[in-house]
Amino acid sequence: MATINENYLKLKAGYLFPEIARRVAAFTEANPEAPIIKLGIGDVTEPLPQACLEAMSKAISEMGDRATFKGYGPEQGYGWLREKIAAQDFQARNCDIDASEIFVSDGAKCDTGNILDIFGKDNRIAVTDPVYPVYVDTNVMAGHTGPANDDGKYEGLVYMPISADNNFTAEIPSDKVDLVYLCFPNNPTGATATQEHLKAWVDYAREHQAIILFDAAYEAFITDESLPHSIYEIEGAKDCAIEFRSFSKNAGFTGTRCAYTVVPKSLTATTSSGETVQLHQLWNRRQSTKFNGVSYIVQRGAEAVYSDAGQAQIKALVGFYLENAKIICDRLSKAGLTVYGGVNAPYVWVKTPNGLSSWEFFDKLLQTANVVGTPGSGFGAAGEGYFRISAFNSRANVEEAMTRVTENFKV
Amino acid sequence: MATINENYLKLKAGYLFPEIARRVAAFTEANPEAPIIKLGIGDVTEPLPQACLEAMSKAISEMGDRATFKGYGPEQGYGWLREKIAAQDFQARNCDIDASEIFVSDGAKCDTGNILDIFGKDNRIAVTDPVYPVYVDTNVMAGHTGPANDDGKYEGLVYMPISADNNFTAEIPSDKVDLVYLCFPNNPTGATATQEHLKAWVDYAREHQAIILFDAAYEAFITDESLPHSIYEIEGAKDCAIEFRSFSKNAGFTGTRCAYTVVPKSLTATTSSGETVQLHQLWNRRQSTKFNGVSYIVQRGAEAVYSDAGQAQIKALVGFYLENAKIICDRLSKAGLTVYGGVNAPYVWVKTPNGLSSWEFFDKLLQTANVVGTPGSGFGAAGEGYFRISAFNSRANVEEAMTRVTENFKV
Repeated sequence: MATINENYLKLKAGYLFPEIARRVAAFTEANPEAPIIKLGIGDVTEPLPQACLEAMSKAISEMGDRATFKGYGPEQGYGWLREKIAAQDFQARNCDIDASEIFVSDGAKCDTGNILDIFGKDNRIAVTDPVYPVYVDTNVMAGHTGPANDDGKYEGLVYMPISADNNFTAEIPSDKVDLVYLCFPNNPTGATATQEHLKAWVDYAREHQAIILFDAAYEAFITDESLPHSIYEIEGAKDCAIEFRSFSKNAGFTGTRCAYTVVPKSLTATTSSGETVQLHQLWNRRQSTKFNGVSYIVQRGAEAVYSDAGQAQIKALVGFYLENAKIICDRLSKAGLTVYGGVNAPYVWVKTPNGLSSWEFFDKLLQTANVVGTPGSGFGAAGEGYFRISAFNSRANVEEAMTRVTENFKV
Repeated sequence: MATINENYLKLKAGYLFPEIARRVAAFTEANPEAPIIKLGIGDVTEPLPQACLEAMSKAISEMGDRATFKGYGPEQGYGWLREKIAAQDFQARNCDIDASEIFVSDGAKCDTGNILDIFGKDNRIAVTDPVYPVYVDTNVMAGHTGPANDDGKYEGLVYMPISADNNFTAEIPSDKVDLVYLCFPNNPTGATATQEHLKAWVDYAREHQAIILFDAAYEAFITDESLPHSIYEIEGAKDCAIEFRSFSKNAGFTGTRCAYTVVPKSLTATTSSGETVQLHQLWNRRQSTKFNGVSYIVQRGAEAVYSDAGQAQIKALVGFYLENAKIICDRLSKAGLTVYGGVNAPYVWVKTPNGLSSWEFFDKLLQTANVVGTPGSGFGAAGEGYFRISAFNSRANVEEAMTRVTENFKV
């Protein structure tokens, strides 16, 4: 009699976005003419950069000719892509990362989930609250937690609250933890981390031989020159951090699928008897056995991001969304709301006014402005009283949504 | 102090293909002019079907226009692709499989590994010997086995030997097992399964509430009309089987990356306390949380496989490789070797002559004919004394390789 992985039965979530969909559907049914604008899910809306389109078209031609056809590629990604990533995303910022430490994949979501494959079951794991739900859910599925309590918090995880009180940057734990998820620029709060904040984490991790799982999927949105783009800009991070990057948000690859993960060769963890094992070797084994590389066509598209034309085009694309974010921040502030993020990030994190709960604010915004966002409480108990608005939409939709909020939305 | 998943340290493999590469490199260094022909790894060599190229080019144009741009798609795959798969691969063969039971993915290798995520740790797992190494390695990595013995067999797995003696089809175990991996047409032996053989497995699985993990990646190579293409052609299989399919070998997508897995909604397994849980729901949760769907561009390419033009083109492609396989079988037989498979499969499974070991045969073939294949012992202890030759190459290379074997290879 085959048995299931019962950890799946502990999962509370899958709740947030279906519940949003349910409420929007109910509202639309009652108000079929309502011109709803969605600023909820963090999905891009603008076309792919021309350089990527051209590179992928060329790759398709190659796949049609026996002489240039590509079968299985390296599971780790093609050398020409890994070299460009290492040079332009890391070495250009004085991070000593080699191409062989880059693992190209089909998504940062996949990698942040799959990375748990190489770790033991006995690690003490810390996440922020609020948090990107995938970090939590994949730990639940892997059996690293007990059941959830009424707040939706899982037994066994260490939750680090982030709010306006701590500038949305988690305090270094006084307890010892072994794996720490950090995400900067942050989803959902749009907060960023200074050199000093990341240095404090790196120091903590090195002292406790902990590993930082650093999600930098929104790195391209950093415009403040004092902010680090990679955790490897911090000395010593190569000994304690794995970094996740994505082409989804800088080059609009959410539907094209390419990302990468950096596992430095100097990074180790231990066996229960205290032997040291290189994590690079384990992740390489994991990817070689359970993954078959990213489509050649897509990798050529990702490579084009690093061309001069590609760099200019993604800068324009990111700039477009950042201008949207600025408009959202400005207009909501003028309407009397308190906003965070939205400067070096595509997310604006709004404090709900007058003690409204996240869901009350959601309903009010939907009803009076026909605008859909994401309730902060959906990202964790400490997100209650906040609301996420995404800058990923057309300029016209963002302008229209903000006009409605300013004119119609009465707190 | 972060700890690793120590199960990875039990892994013996990763051994086969690097060892082949090492021996080929050593030979090439000593014989730099040797015109080596590789018939080892099962990778396609011919260009993508024209229908797929055209569909992907069109999809790239869509990604360049805001009005037709695609961001995140459904994690399960687009409905238009799932519908065509269900209709043409299953319903057309009287298998009652619905589009909602199809999960589009980036590879059958990934899915056959990842599927273990949804099962418990206490299942008794059966594999054939020889076997596609991914089934075994992913179980080792998931902690479902003890260490390997000197034969490379892992404690705790049930090995079902397949050889000429049993027509390369595993006997139904007398013991109870909970998960059974079957692969037909078989990699590495090229063997196929009759209706009767699969029915015996389905009956066994239903009797013991076991789940069959049915890998049909080479289904397109079946030309014998009496053979089932899908396990769902067997009555009752929807209650006991998950099927894995791929576009890698029918449409040459090894470097393009698309596959799918069928998890029928009627399929269940149990909790330790005996409650029944739908596996479809668990796999859906797994994919939604740890995967983000296949590239829109690639899914459009896969969809084109189901057009009239696409169907004609993949038939020609598969026919080409099957003709290669026939040439290999005929010529090796004439050279006095005993061959299996290669009729409804792209692999020819050769009995090594005169009691040569698999590796001895490898060395001899490399030295006297400059032809590279895969030692059967690399697929498991019971593969000793066999050798796999792949039909994936150009006609000229296959002809030349066979001429060399016939003329130069002396047993």
